[in-house]
Amino acid sequence: MTDSLRDLATQLERFAEDRDWSQFHSPKNLASALIVEAGELLEHFQWQTEAESRALSQDKLAAVGAELADVLLYLVQLASALGIDPIAAANAKIQHNARKYPADLSRGSSRKYDEPSP
Amino acid sequence: MTDSLRDLATQLERFAEDRDWSQFHSPKNLASALIVEAGELLEHFQWQTEAESRALSQDKLAAVGAELADVLLYLVQLASALGIDPIAAANAKIQHNARKYPADLSRGSSRKYDEPSP
Amino acid sequence: MTDSLRDLATQLERFAEDRDWSQFHSPKNLASALIVEAGELLEHFQWQTEAESRALSQDKLAAVGAELADVLLYLVQLASALGIDPIAAANAKIQHNARKYPADLSRGSSRKYDEPSP
Amino acid sequence: MTDSLRDLATQLERFAEDRDWSQFHSPKNLASALIVEAGELLEHFQWQTEAESRALSQDKLAAVGAELADVLLYLVQLASALGIDPIAAANAKIQHNARKYPADLSRGSSRKYDEPSP
Repeated sequence: MTDSLRDLATQLERFAEDRDWSQFHSPKNLASALIVEAGELLEHFQWQTEAESRALSQDKLAAVGAELADVLLYLVQLASALGIDPIAAANAKIQHNARKYPADLSRGSSRKYDEPSP
Repeated sequence: MTDSLRDLATQLERFAEDRDWSQFHSPKNLASALIVEAGELLEHFQWQTEAESRALSQDKLAAVGAELADVLLYLVQLASALGIDPIAAANAKIQHNARKYPADLSRGSSRKYDEPSP
Repeated sequence: MTDSLRDLATQLERFAEDRDWSQFHSPKNLASALIVEAGELLEHFQWQTEAESRALSQDKLAAVGAELADVLLYLVQLASALGIDPIAAANAKIQHNARKYPADLSRGSSRKYDEPSP
Repeated sequence: MTDSLRDLATQLERFAEDRDWSQFHSPKNLASALIVEAGELLEHFQWQTEAESRALSQDKLAAVGAELADVLLYLVQLASALGIDPIAAANAKIQHNARKYPADLSRGSSRKYDEPSP
C-alpha cells in the first residue's frame, strides 16, 4: 500500500477506535456502505447525458468529489479489515486485463462492453 | 495524489488509449461501472453472517481482492476523468467527519448508523 | 398487493421454506441481494449510449428481462418479510411525487434531475 | 402484467408525459435510477444486525417502504420502456430457479450462497 493510502487507513482505524465503531465495521457492512456511497456518486450522473457528465459545474464537481471520497474511505477500511493491499490487488488486475484484452485485438472494439465485464 | 495511485492512473490512461476505449469512459459510464463492480464485491458477502465475513477462506479472500481492485480501478479512472485528486478528497472528508462526529459525543453510539450517512 | 404479486410472494415463500433458506432471508440480506441484482441489470447498459439502450437486440432483451425479474423477486421477498404492500407503497409514492413536482412547474425542466432525487 | 402493475405503469407514463420527462427515461438512465434507489433502501440496513433488520420501528418501516416503492416505480418504468412484462419474467425466473436448485438437494444448504447467484 502506498504511504498515502496507508496514512488514510491509519487515520480511519484511529477514527473508528476513538468512537468504538469497529463493532459495526464487519467486511459485510463495509461492502454495503461502499455500494451505498457508490449509489450517491452515481446519483449525480443518472439523468445527465454523457457529454454533460464530462463538463460538470464547479459545485457539482465538489459534490462528486465528496462522494468519490466516501467510496474510497470505505474501500480502504474494507481492505484493512481483510488484510488486502489495494494497490497490489489493482496492479494484479491490470496485468490480468492486459492479458485478457490484447491491445491489437481490442482496439476500437466495444466487444468487452457487450459482455459481462471482468 | 500519491505516486502509487498516480502510477495506477497513468497505467489506466495508457491502457484505455491503446484500445481506443476513452470514448466509452465518460464520468457517467465510469460511475456506472464502479457501482456494478461494487455489486460484485457485495455479492460475496450477501448471504454471509457478519462473523463469516470476518473470517474468509483464502479462495474467497482472493476473489474479494479482485473485485475490490476493480472498484479501485474505476474510482481512479473516474477521478482522472474529472481532475479530482482522490487522496486530497478523502483527507478533506476525514476532516469533515471529525467535526460531524466528535469522538466524545459519538463513542459507542450507533446514532450515525440509524440515520442517513454523510 | 395485487393477486399476481401476491401469487409471486406465495410461491417465493414456499420456495424458500422448501429449501430451508428463510434463515438467510433477513431484510438486511434481501436488500443486499436486491442491489446486487440491480448491478447485474445495470451492467448490460453501462457502456451503451442511451440510444443503444432504447434499441436492444432480442438476446440482450431476454438477458435484461431475466435480471429485471431477479430484482423484482427480491423486492417481493423483502416486502413480504417486512409486511409491506408494494403496490400500496408505490401508489402513495406517486401521490407524493405529484405534489412535489407539479406538472405545470416541472414541464420540460430537468430541475429534478440536477438535485438529489426523492 | 397484472392489473395493478399495469395501472402503475399507466400512471407513470402519464406522469412523465405531463412533465416532458420521457426524454430522460432511456433504459440506461432508468437502470441507473433503479440502483440509486436500491442504495437508498440498503442504507437503512447497512449498520444494522440481521436481527435488527427483522424488527424495524414503525418510522423506519415507513421510510423503508418509501424507498422500496421508488425501486418498484423505476422497475415498472424500465419494464415499460423495454416492453417487458415483469410478472411473466418473474414467473419464468422462478421456474428456472426451481430446476437449478432442487429442493431435495438444496435443503438447509448454503451452497447457493457461496457462489455467484442466479
